[in-house]
Amino acid sequence: MPVNLPLPDRQSLYPVQGIRLAVTHAGIRKANRSDMLLVSLAPQSTVAGVFTQNAFCAAPVQVCRSHLEQAKGVRAWLVNTGCANAGTGPQGLANANRSCEHLASLLALEPSQVLPFSTGVILEHLPMDRLEKGIGLLVNQLGQADWLDAAQAIMTTDTQPKAASRRLEIAGRQVTITGISKGAGMIRPNMATMLGFVATDAGLAPDLLQQLTKAVADETFNSVTIDGDTSTNDSFVTVATGESGCHFELADQGSADWQAFHQAFLGVCLELAQAIVRDGEGATKFITIEVQGARSRDEARQVAYAIGHSPLVKTAFFASDPNLGRILAAIGYSGVPDLRVEAIRVWLDQVLVAEHGGRAQTYTEQAGAAVMAQSEMTIRVDLARGNARATVYTCDLSHDYVSINADYRS
Amino acid sequence: MPVNLPLPDRQSLYPVQGIRLAVTHAGIRKANRSDMLLVSLAPQSTVAGVFTQNAFCAAPVQVCRSHLEQAKGVRAWLVNTGCANAGTGPQGLANANRSCEHLASLLALEPSQVLPFSTGVILEHLPMDRLEKGIGLLVNQLGQADWLDAAQAIMTTDTQPKAASRRLEIAGRQVTITGISKGAGMIRPNMATMLGFVATDAGLAPDLLQQLTKAVADETFNSVTIDGDTSTNDSFVTVATGESGCHFELADQGSADWQAFHQAFLGVCLELAQAIVRDGEGATKFITIEVQGARSRDEARQVAYAIGHSPLVKTAFFASDPNLGRILAAIGYSGVPDLRVEAIRVWLDQVLVAEHGGRAQTYTEQAGAAVMAQSEMTIRVDLARGNARATVYTCDLSHDYVSINADYRS
Repeated sequence: MPVNLPLPDRQSLYPVQGIRLAVTHAGIRKANRSDMLLVSLAPQSTVAGVFTQNAFCAAPVQVCRSHLEQAKGVRAWLVNTGCANAGTGPQGLANANRSCEHLASLLALEPSQVLPFSTGVILEHLPMDRLEKGIGLLVNQLGQADWLDAAQAIMTTDTQPKAASRRLEIAGRQVTITGISKGAGMIRPNMATMLGFVATDAGLAPDLLQQLTKAVADETFNSVTIDGDTSTNDSFVTVATGESGCHFELADQGSADWQAFHQAFLGVCLELAQAIVRDGEGATKFITIEVQGARSRDEARQVAYAIGHSPLVKTAFFASDPNLGRILAAIGYSGVPDLRVEAIRVWLDQVLVAEHGGRAQTYTEQAGAAVMAQSEMTIRVDLARGNARATVYTCDLSHDYVSINADYRS
Repeated sequence: MPVNLPLPDRQSLYPVQGIRLAVTHAGIRKANRSDMLLVSLAPQSTVAGVFTQNAFCAAPVQVCRSHLEQAKGVRAWLVNTGCANAGTGPQGLANANRSCEHLASLLALEPSQVLPFSTGVILEHLPMDRLEKGIGLLVNQLGQADWLDAAQAIMTTDTQPKAASRRLEIAGRQVTITGISKGAGMIRPNMATMLGFVATDAGLAPDLLQQLTKAVADETFNSVTIDGDTSTNDSFVTVATGESGCHFELADQGSADWQAFHQAFLGVCLELAQAIVRDGEGATKFITIEVQGARSRDEARQVAYAIGHSPLVKTAFFASDPNLGRILAAIGYSGVPDLRVEAIRVWLDQVLVAEHGGRAQTYTEQAGAAVMAQSEMTIRVDLARGNARATVYTCDLSHDYVSINADYRS
């Protein structure tokens, strides 16, 4: 059961002008489930993306990077689940390229105008016959799917589709931002998550869109962790079609219109990123970890991730057991040099847990237990050595995480 | 159930000349279990130790470091379970010092001749009344316990006592090395494990013993991981009483006698360190991770720990599921710069799993599954970029890990 993650409401996932969607059942790995998605982008669209830093990055990620560097505008995103096409060597790369060529030939595009995305089992090859048959079906059905269909088509171990949408008026024009994401395990994105797609009908100059995408990824998809495993396939891509008539250039960044757009865009991405944690494999708690008083943002993140990755912290939260010494231990081994433990303070929501190197005088087991019993809580740490801060979102570690991952392929 | 960890045989845990032991039930946390150990060391003994690098290191660790720096020879080790005396601030430090003073007064020693060790729950204070009563009982019973009793007295979530012993003849004299260890969770030692004690009746010059202790810790206790959580209390201490009549100085390191002694000492420590993994919380598999072809030992360890800490790799081993792409993913995100994935090869025991950036041509699911079905296996990785290597020992991640850690305090 995901943590406080309502099913997306089809009516509130606003269509984005300039985007057409199709989904199909190709039987890539299992029969009778949507496992392919095609997103067609209006001709004038700008596209940006950030991808996994995993050295064993998947073939489609390599192809995406290469196609984004080429001058031709990207016009289609092609997604399959069931097979990650990662750890597949030269044949994997050939298969990713072949799928782009096949789709391009049907849509009268150059292969480099297609970005391919795969998610699923690593070390196995794409079943090219089924994939190509699926591509044909997608092209025939283009425009018949909506964003909820799209969110469903990219699920793997996700228990729920993940989608978010915002609509705002900018200079008298209605601008929409809608996105989808997927992922529930192997989640500790490094540049992006295991598939996030966000579209807007605002127009953004290419450099502005790339800059926005990187900055927003850092605050959202790059600030969640479930199990500390950075995937081979993480990809977060964005498109700005411009069809709303609203357009932004780099020089517009100081404007109130840009601020409003930026906030809405960030909001969609944060909702999508948090949805991944809320639907984390086996998650029963949604935990926000705020670290302040650090010398640098990197240092704050290092401490936040040490806490967020500790199996002992995570199992204590699963048990609703305020065994909070485990948080101190994680801060202590986070690797930040010269920590002055006497100065560090730790809160659970508003409850001060630790100060002066030990348990706070005012702390009571009852107060700690009351917060632990909630389904959402914030661990706040003040390192008291600087002004930098960072926030990371994570979940607990439960029996179901083990069950899901022990049985994933079977 | 620990993985291939036989109960220590009382008869084959050889006494060490110059060492006297006592254990008692002090009811520190729970009634009716041995929870205190006293180890008394002959006057001429040399002692060395390595301790946790966790910034929130426990009060007894701080006291140990300070007492080892003082000139007076250490004459007693005092251990309690049930309370780690960590995250306890100034009062914790005062309690650790008071326990040393109390024992010293009964044994006519200086307080600095006592090393204190605590293990158990973090963030709680030692019950000093029960502890001091326990110290009195220990002093009265000194010499009445053997090494198996000692191993039992330091257990917490351990399901089995951990002890190892070797006897060898050096220059006509019988030399004994016997040690005990404890720990099953919060195990990713950084300088030492959650309590390891090794005694020999060989004599070793203090600098030689310290050098040996550090080097051996690096190969043994510092090469195991269960959950990646470096404890606040890790301590590994050694004593050489010299009562066998055999003595080593720094200058003896080239000799065959030293080689034989070093091997036996390393063997005892490796057995103790591996016992911790075999009894890892919820462990069903014992996994050796060998990384070779690295540019440095640190780099090799970085890759080995990335694999050893991956919850996805660990759950796949629990399930005996050769979902080996997860190993590639972990290598890929280990953080080693400029990895050439095409050159990397991965084996499971003798089965080549991956090469040329993908699955090996010769690999079959059946061959992988056969290795995964075993209770012990080796993951071998060749990074093909240098000559350095490292070995790390770990276990799988099972339902029982979650159960044990969700319920630890209750």
